[in-house]
Amino acid sequence: MKVGDVGEFGLIGRLAALVKTPHKGVVVGIGDDVAVLQVAEDQWLLATVDSQVEGVHFLRQVITPYQLGRKALAINVSDIAAMGGTPTFVLASLALPQDLEVAWVEALYEGLHAEATRVGAAVVGGNMARSPDGIFIDITVLGTVAKDEVLLRSGARPGDQVLVTGTLGDSALGLHLILHPEITVPDAARAYLLSRHLTPSPRLTEGRLIARSRQATAMIDISDGLSSDVMHLCNASEVGIRLWAERFPLSAAARQVAAYTGRPAWEWALTGGEDYELCFTAGAEGVPILQRQVTDITRTPITVIGEILPASAGHWLVLPDGKEVPLTAQGWRHF
Amino acid sequence: MKVGDVGEFGLIGRLAALVKTPHKGVVVGIGDDVAVLQVAEDQWLLATVDSQVEGVHFLRQVITPYQLGRKALAINVSDIAAMGGTPTFVLASLALPQDLEVAWVEALYEGLHAEATRVGAAVVGGNMARSPDGIFIDITVLGTVAKDEVLLRSGARPGDQVLVTGTLGDSALGLHLILHPEITVPDAARAYLLSRHLTPSPRLTEGRLIARSRQATAMIDISDGLSSDVMHLCNASEVGIRLWAERFPLSAAARQVAAYTGRPAWEWALTGGEDYELCFTAGAEGVPILQRQVTDITRTPITVIGEILPASAGHWLVLPDGKEVPLTAQGWRHF
Repeated sequence: MKVGDVGEFGLIGRLAALVKTPHKGVVVGIGDDVAVLQVAEDQWLLATVDSQVEGVHFLRQVITPYQLGRKALAINVSDIAAMGGTPTFVLASLALPQDLEVAWVEALYEGLHAEATRVGAAVVGGNMARSPDGIFIDITVLGTVAKDEVLLRSGARPGDQVLVTGTLGDSALGLHLILHPEITVPDAARAYLLSRHLTPSPRLTEGRLIARSRQATAMIDISDGLSSDVMHLCNASEVGIRLWAERFPLSAAARQVAAYTGRPAWEWALTGGEDYELCFTAGAEGVPILQRQVTDITRTPITVIGEILPASAGHWLVLPDGKEVPLTAQGWRHF
Repeated sequence: MKVGDVGEFGLIGRLAALVKTPHKGVVVGIGDDVAVLQVAEDQWLLATVDSQVEGVHFLRQVITPYQLGRKALAINVSDIAAMGGTPTFVLASLALPQDLEVAWVEALYEGLHAEATRVGAAVVGGNMARSPDGIFIDITVLGTVAKDEVLLRSGARPGDQVLVTGTLGDSALGLHLILHPEITVPDAARAYLLSRHLTPSPRLTEGRLIARSRQATAMIDISDGLSSDVMHLCNASEVGIRLWAERFPLSAAARQVAAYTGRPAWEWALTGGEDYELCFTAGAEGVPILQRQVTDITRTPITVIGEILPASAGHWLVLPDGKEVPLTAQGWRHF
């Protein structure tokens, strides 16, 4: 059965049934033109939108619609996590070719719903349009954060340490393996890196614990790639930075597979995108407190990878051989 | 200069500069991954999203990017207006071909900004992605409404009158003239109908006055076409309806131009989409109060076009010759 067979409202009805769940903040949810929602008075409202375009962000042969539904939401949840917030409401706007299978769209919504449920959010609305060619998925996520806990990009100060959650470069290496099926690597390493690329788990609990600790000064999620995203943070905070490549946290799989790519693992960590880890800054005295409050609860490692400098000192990367080179944004670019 | 020449962040920087304005509810606005916003405690938050897809909703040869920017926002404002709400925050997510002129995107944003400013809203964020082919514009609008004034689709009761603002069918006739340039009609009529199609003015003030009057029981905006949208209202309210074709409000231009199309003007009013007028219901005693409170202030006419029936009585249209026929949704369908 094709999208063109069930019609716009037939499709919306089927999808609404898949994602409809009671949620205390939802007054009018999916099925109306407008969602009516409740935000508590001591909270800021957070709003972010991100898209997944067929042939640019995803290939239908590589990712299942269920995985794609989860990922399209996860990348937005990561943005909310980077402010220390909680995602609450999701709107999904789709442009679909008429000959797309209804089952494909339903699986996408099942993924969206699974990820929304996992993070405590509700799908409250969206839009459905025809696309002449290719699938366009736009996900808007609203969230909330306590007014006195919000973390911005702009709070980093000279002397702060630069920290990251988890490991870097896994997702980009996973994509590399998808695009180069001729590379043979151990099955376990392949499976791990592919899952990091196809079903990222945004660091929502970590983000909330980091914000709640009140030790962090600035935060951003790593989506375009570490080098690009730390530059966003430095620009917003008007500071310089020094990163140590040797300290980048790497998974065993990333170390193992990077050897097959002709590029060192630290380079994958520096420039590979879609990590959906958090990069944040804190004074030196805050580091052990953060590691205790975050890692003890979540088991997610937190690693110091650099230090914030005055703006006049510039942006630097210390290579594993000790040589210092200028740090430039080298992540994903759309145009 | 093409989009591909300035790069993603270059483009975002240029566009952010075009739309950046202080707004009391905006804590962190455009330029960050996430907007941080303020919602008052006695307000519901409203959220809606709608898209404009090249080749489906618009043709680049027909509408200027400035007009398109205004319209892409206006159609969402209309949804907010239909709840009696006020638009506050706008997120724009674009997928653009690499060879698109930067000037085109800037003009789009100028239109978006002009419309946002006109309705008192701020553009607070968005997303920018590459499209393999064709332009995709997704606009998310957040708004607020006083908790005790919100109007839903679901409140219509048997015995209520059915009312509409303004005139119907103008926009569809404007589109018809664009698609059939061989039709020669008086210049003034053409200009009026084209402006109704290309630069709709959502009935924001009217919606707020209707809600504030507390006389209306349900409301929806007419975007898919009167017949489709009243059926949405009837379904949500679980009621039947009788509409009188003879009473549909028609502009002089619509009457004049319909004669050239081989279809009566009331048919254009019934099935033509994109009117962005409001359709609402109220008890008979509320009608003069509404007309006084809305028309006296806005000069927008309000016309009774039908009556709400019990669900068991069904959905009917009385034709100009007095014959009664079943009313069916015949508006715009995406698939």
